[in-house]
Amino acid sequence: MKPLLSLILTRRLSSPLVAGTPLHSNNNYTSVVAPLRRLHRPAFAPSTPRLKFQIPQTNKKKPEKMSTDATTLKGQPLDRAALDAMLRRRLFYTPSFEIYGGVSGLYDYGPPGCALQANVIDLWRKHFILEEDMLEVDCTVLTPHDVLKTSGHVDKFADWMCKDPKNGEILRADHFVEDILEQRLKGDKEARGLKVEEKEETDKKKAAKKKKNKGGVEAVRLDDAVVKEYEEILAQIDNYNGEQLGKLIKKHDLRNPATGLQPTPPVSFNLMFQTSIGPSSNLPGYLRPETAQGQFLNFAKLLEFNTGQMPFASASIGKSYRNEISPRAGLLRVREFLMAEIEHFVDPEGHKKHARFHEVADVELAFLDRHTQLSGSTVVKKQTIGQAVKEGLVDNETLGYFLARILLFLKKIGIDEKKIRFRQHMDNEMAHYACDCWDAELHTSAGWVECVGCADRSAYDLSVHAKKTGAPLVVRQRLEEPITIEEWDIAIDKKNFGPFYKKDGKTIENALLATTQEQRGELVKQLEENGKVVIDVPGVNDGKVEVSKDLLAIKWVKRVENVREYTPNVIEPSFGIGRILYSLMEHNYWTRASEGGDEARGVLSFPPAVAPTKVLIVPLSSNKDFTPEVRKLSQKLRSAGVSSRIDDSSASIGKRYSRNDELGTPFGVTVDFQTLKDGTVTLRERDSTRQVRAEEDKIIAAIKALVEGTKTWQDVEGELPIFEGQQEVEVVVR
Amino acid sequence: MKPLLSLILTRRLSSPLVAGTPLHSNNNYTSVVAPLRRLHRPAFAPSTPRLKFQIPQTNKKKPEKMSTDATTLKGQPLDRAALDAMLRRRLFYTPSFEIYGGVSGLYDYGPPGCALQANVIDLWRKHFILEEDMLEVDCTVLTPHDVLKTSGHVDKFADWMCKDPKNGEILRADHFVEDILEQRLKGDKEARGLKVEEKEETDKKKAAKKKKNKGGVEAVRLDDAVVKEYEEILAQIDNYNGEQLGKLIKKHDLRNPATGLQPTPPVSFNLMFQTSIGPSSNLPGYLRPETAQGQFLNFAKLLEFNTGQMPFASASIGKSYRNEISPRAGLLRVREFLMAEIEHFVDPEGHKKHARFHEVADVELAFLDRHTQLSGSTVVKKQTIGQAVKEGLVDNETLGYFLARILLFLKKIGIDEKKIRFRQHMDNEMAHYACDCWDAELHTSAGWVECVGCADRSAYDLSVHAKKTGAPLVVRQRLEEPITIEEWDIAIDKKNFGPFYKKDGKTIENALLATTQEQRGELVKQLEENGKVVIDVPGVNDGKVEVSKDLLAIKWVKRVENVREYTPNVIEPSFGIGRILYSLMEHNYWTRASEGGDEARGVLSFPPAVAPTKVLIVPLSSNKDFTPEVRKLSQKLRSAGVSSRIDDSSASIGKRYSRNDELGTPFGVTVDFQTLKDGTVTLRERDSTRQVRAEEDKIIAAIKALVEGTKTWQDVEGELPIFEGQQEVEVVVR
Repeated sequence: MKPLLSLILTRRLSSPLVAGTPLHSNNNYTSVVAPLRRLHRPAFAPSTPRLKFQIPQTNKKKPEKMSTDATTLKGQPLDRAALDAMLRRRLFYTPSFEIYGGVSGLYDYGPPGCALQANVIDLWRKHFILEEDMLEVDCTVLTPHDVLKTSGHVDKFADWMCKDPKNGEILRADHFVEDILEQRLKGDKEARGLKVEEKEETDKKKAAKKKKNKGGVEAVRLDDAVVKEYEEILAQIDNYNGEQLGKLIKKHDLRNPATGLQPTPPVSFNLMFQTSIGPSSNLPGYLRPETAQGQFLNFAKLLEFNTGQMPFASASIGKSYRNEISPRAGLLRVREFLMAEIEHFVDPEGHKKHARFHEVADVELAFLDRHTQLSGSTVVKKQTIGQAVKEGLVDNETLGYFLARILLFLKKIGIDEKKIRFRQHMDNEMAHYACDCWDAELHTSAGWVECVGCADRSAYDLSVHAKKTGAPLVVRQRLEEPITIEEWDIAIDKKNFGPFYKKDGKTIENALLATTQEQRGELVKQLEENGKVVIDVPGVNDGKVEVSKDLLAIKWVKRVENVREYTPNVIEPSFGIGRILYSLMEHNYWTRASEGGDEARGVLSFPPAVAPTKVLIVPLSSNKDFTPEVRKLSQKLRSAGVSSRIDDSSASIGKRYSRNDELGTPFGVTVDFQTLKDGTVTLRERDSTRQVRAEEDKIIAAIKALVEGTKTWQDVEGELPIFEGQQEVEVVVR
Repeated sequence: MKPLLSLILTRRLSSPLVAGTPLHSNNNYTSVVAPLRRLHRPAFAPSTPRLKFQIPQTNKKKPEKMSTDATTLKGQPLDRAALDAMLRRRLFYTPSFEIYGGVSGLYDYGPPGCALQANVIDLWRKHFILEEDMLEVDCTVLTPHDVLKTSGHVDKFADWMCKDPKNGEILRADHFVEDILEQRLKGDKEARGLKVEEKEETDKKKAAKKKKNKGGVEAVRLDDAVVKEYEEILAQIDNYNGEQLGKLIKKHDLRNPATGLQPTPPVSFNLMFQTSIGPSSNLPGYLRPETAQGQFLNFAKLLEFNTGQMPFASASIGKSYRNEISPRAGLLRVREFLMAEIEHFVDPEGHKKHARFHEVADVELAFLDRHTQLSGSTVVKKQTIGQAVKEGLVDNETLGYFLARILLFLKKIGIDEKKIRFRQHMDNEMAHYACDCWDAELHTSAGWVECVGCADRSAYDLSVHAKKTGAPLVVRQRLEEPITIEEWDIAIDKKNFGPFYKKDGKTIENALLATTQEQRGELVKQLEENGKVVIDVPGVNDGKVEVSKDLLAIKWVKRVENVREYTPNVIEPSFGIGRILYSLMEHNYWTRASEGGDEARGVLSFPPAVAPTKVLIVPLSSNKDFTPEVRKLSQKLRSAGVSSRIDDSSASIGKRYSRNDELGTPFGVTVDFQTLKDGTVTLRERDSTRQVRAEEDKIIAAIKALVEGTKTWQDVEGELPIFEGQQEVEVVVR
């Protein structure tokens, strides 16, 4: 704790000897007084307000556990097992390396999943990057050790794990404690004769669970005091470190149901995948755990590219990696995942106003603020973002602007607005440097899942990298009116300093130049009293270095500044694309059972813009006479910029449409014998299964309008003749 | 060699006991007689015909070496140093982690590079995936050891490296031998008074080189016999293994110029980045070296997704990784790179015809066939692909179809057709299973660089994975007429076999079932003579396993087959996107010097479809009156689907256009005081710097037509008034 705290309190000051005569006005650490408890939690790297995309535990719902209140698009209870089976059957996703037995936490996207992902990314790029002139960068995944050491990931990006001494099973310590205590509380309820909410499980799963939990759930009544103690532990399960978790395991004699033994004491497990770069194995590296660091390292170049103008944002879409201890939540907790991250750099002075805030001020969001959560409630408050910023619920306009833009994006791709909420981090959940932090959470069968994080990272990252490398990751702003500064100035005897300290010279010099005004005041006293100063230089000697007055002068100087130099703050909207895709699939899923149809007939009602394929072209049969017409149609749709697929398999038309309902294809065109006579085709709409019939070109124009969103299906039904012919019976078989 | 060879000669036969009663007709190994020398070369994994995207050495041009004959778009000699400086200044790319000193072989793309890449990928997806209904998949980069062991990468995907015993410098053995011998030949030429082609180098580079090469190039005359020997070695430098390279170093006393010492004997260095998956470190894994394996492993699922229809193709766009020993060629040899790969699965029977071949039959390609290369010539032959396939120059229609489609794609994105050739692999360069293999090579300052490989991987990959896992990676085709088969059939005593061999049971069973008819004939003899058989089972015991006649029966059976089962062959077009992007930048680069202008004014004449930004919007000055007009214009362009950027920096209009010439922005719109009066704006074309002036909406319509390629600049000049006003002087300053 100590070194980190002092680092936070240290204002980085470039000495005039090094970087001209800047004005040191960066008061970026307004949030330094925020509670620091979060730092104790190993899962949260100091460079991230929290482990981005970790499922929040505050609601005690982990993705491993089914939520019984999840619904389909039509409000039916969601059968997740049926949905998952359908998604795998239709190759939206599939376990990687399955013929080799698979690897947990790794999944491949098949054609529809891949197209869905590409369409969502395309909309993301338009909605954020193009709309806001963001500077997109594509940085490498391979990252050398030093970078992630500085950012804090090497030391802090870890979870606690313990091991079963008998069967070697590896357990994530916090999950283990939570699971066992919950089991005991459940047993207690049973013993008290209270109703226990049972999850919907297939028989197979139940059997597997029973086997695993031998000696697990027993109807044992607990003392009231014990129940209270367990509940208190669960409420703050996020706050324990490894030692504390170890003590809980001992104190409450928590045993692995599989062996009946207590696991070993928790040890820290870093979540980054490690490798070596180059042939000599002396450059250790990692697969990045987030795309953010590459953006920070390029800050100075991006600022120059932007002709020095502030504010601006960079953005990056790419894979990141986390070596989860035991991923068990399908697409929601994986080891390799696609992220889309924005780093919006803003002057910390001027209340982080945003020039386009007025455009979104009337957008209404569902807020779950920290006070509500602390009172034990999860009732959201609906409010416009304009009002929320005005009232101080959301800290500033820039943060507010992005929250509204995130909502608009999620709605655009087809996320159910009723299943979106913005949850504010609680004080004890927030990183030391954040002044406000909100997650866009989506409701799924795994409960409320964090899918987009939107945090104010303050100046933390730019500051630590600048301090480590000496690179000026700052903005130099010309002042309209020069100002006069009086302050302690450090001068180093360059000629003798380097030769004296040799290889450590630069590090020690940087440490001196990074001292705050307060610290310099202290150093002056030391110089006067002892003829030397002792400063903290991590990594040199034992961390303490003496500098004699021969090599150093600290003077009270007065000078006129024309330039203000500051380290920008960063607002970071960070999207977990895989989680969004999974939520999107759940939110758009329903079965025809809701309209009295076949229970098994699943439908994915994706909006046309994100649907993997827009149009299915179906010849009535495999008769070869249809082939030229089908080809022509496909070519015309391609020219119109609409993706289509031909299904000329031998299955019945009904079966083929049914397959494409499951693939989320919004429109279907049938080529039949009538087509060969008069050039008309039928157009079917997925959700209603209603059809119209018209000449090919009219149908293509209608499809283009539907896909681009300029017309609704109602419009099309109003313009083109409804088709309820022979075929309909076959298609809408119920 | 031995195990691999026997593996190749082994036809995989599913026993009827396991997989029904298939017809074993897969005669996929027609190419087995092709020379196997390539296998000796460690750099070429057996699963890849060659190390995809390795710079071909046959022309003795490595990217490390400048080619003096590279030209700009306008035929000027290409100054690569100037181009590279410009590309870095404009942030097309930049060394990763530069403020930490950088890591060789890792580069980040900045905003223009990123946009260029996204546009090229978008066109690739449309040109290949959408146009051909390919099945796109997105598989993980993390790959467990077993998969890459089976594919051959663990054992063979390696280069030879040696070490300087004094300074520890690590050298790639073949490059080292080549460099020293070339230096000596150069010294010989100098001594003979012959002109030595000197590379264009900056003074700084020269100085650095001189320092490094102390004791290097000396004008020493060699014996004629020695010269001949050196030249012969260089001509086949690709063919030496580590031991042979070590012998060459000893025999010719090759010494590292930096220390004057011979390096250590070469050792094999695997090029894959290694890591561990999961917390227990017992699942070793790698970062994939190609995207292909993920596609092969999903073959059965993809075939089912395609409703069992053949042929079909899968495709994947994603990053791959190779831990190059010492990457020194900028974007052309990197450790992390984007690939786009197609695996086209085709029935090996029926001459690999392609249904759409006629569409491309008239496309003309520049071929450099193997016979021409062997005769020492590099003169290309221009021919239509139709003729080339007819004459047997290109092996089959499917391969030919893709070669033509590759050419069309490269031209579409703006690669200079004059700098494209298709080079056929020579017999000794081709992998054991390939019957034909062609590279699309692009000419750059690094010589001819392989940017797209197009190989026939035969049934190799599907066969080895099926053999290892027992998964049926085959196509089952219903026969129109049943046929009668007589052959050796293996039956295993299932009840006792498993319990007897315990954990190895499945592996041994697979090995038995994988035996060929010839082998089974031998096994029958062993059974009769010894009452048992001995078979090779790699990884079990010492590789030999005995099976007694109690557990095994081999009988001559006769049966009727209704289904033909075969392993498809794979045609693989594989694109190195980074190399294509770099070539694209070189091919479209020129300076205004060619038209008598400023030498330093670089231009990148990207076609609008790939240009990072289509339109630059330039207000005449930073006068605030222009702001609403500029915003409106930007919004209108966005609605028209055209990406634009505003440059309202304080630089002169000339400077701002100049910057955007370097960024490759094809069009510029100026907003001036006239605009505020009559709503007209000027439109500037990048390459000609000519301008027209008209009302805003007309200009936007013109831009849209230009970007979509429906109009040329000449068309626009014919329709809208030419503008040669006041401003022109400022803009086209020369």
